[in-house]
Amino acid sequence: MAIESYHFDFMLEAIREAETSIAQGGLPIGAVLTRDNKIIARGHNNRVQENNPILHGEMSCLREAGAISFHDTVMYTTLSPCSMCAGALGLFKVKLVVIGESVTFEGSKDILDKFGIPWIDLADDRSITMMKNWRSIPANERLWQGDIGN
Amino acid sequence: MAIESYHFDFMLEAIREAETSIAQGGLPIGAVLTRDNKIIARGHNNRVQENNPILHGEMSCLREAGAISFHDTVMYTTLSPCSMCAGALGLFKVKLVVIGESVTFEGSKDILDKFGIPWIDLADDRSITMMKNWRSIPANERLWQGDIGN
Repeated sequence: MAIESYHFDFMLEAIREAETSIAQGGLPIGAVLTRDNKIIARGHNNRVQENNPILHGEMSCLREAGAISFHDTVMYTTLSPCSMCAGALGLFKVKLVVIGESVTFEGSKDILDKFGIPWIDLADDRSITMMKNWRSIPANERLWQGDIGN
Repeated sequence: MAIESYHFDFMLEAIREAETSIAQGGLPIGAVLTRDNKIIARGHNNRVQENNPILHGEMSCLREAGAISFHDTVMYTTLSPCSMCAGALGLFKVKLVVIGESVTFEGSKDILDKFGIPWIDLADDRSITMMKNWRSIPANERLWQGDIGN
């Protein structure tokens, strides 16, 4: 699938969500949801902020979108979706998932594949560097391990 | 794995959560989480109540538990977990998943299997009948289809 330049623009918006989370003491993972190339919902990881383990970036974004049909939406996420988030995106049948990076975390693209959900991995340096810098602080690394159930 | 009688007792508590949701106009799916055979969190589907697509029964229950380690917990759910919920239970590495029924919805036990999470399906008549009766009303059937992304 072609990597259109606007995918990088929407990924920048997802990165801004992640930066907001960092400023709140949370994990640097953000997401935006688009329909017809317009943002209809935004979100970032809120595990720390709300003491809520299910609020990964994609999940916060789905929450903000509300109980709609997701069939014509595209999810942008700075980090490859875990099994919970990939399972949600598969169940709700989003049209496309655009991933910032899979270097930090491989995630569960196999679940997207099983549901026939197309995905693009931008291997975006901005996303990779953001996670790497944040995880270099030991307390943050512990937050990250908790976020993925370790 | 042996089906201990106390599994049916905790399933009754999950059914009570589902009944609470019905009384609120929501979907009849409930869950409880135990540690050392004591309930530490309860939840039910809140899609309708909070206009929030991620709040399946299991997810509401995980939310109530908070950002803890789930490694020594058992999830009881009246309905076989979907890909989102199975993905969450796999990521967070619960010790066991006890399922009320899979007749209404097969769910994604394959995701639990992939993560090595043991599960028991009680094929519990109380859970089956509850969903069947509720879905016999057309407006409820539409809510159910939305709940699983259709």
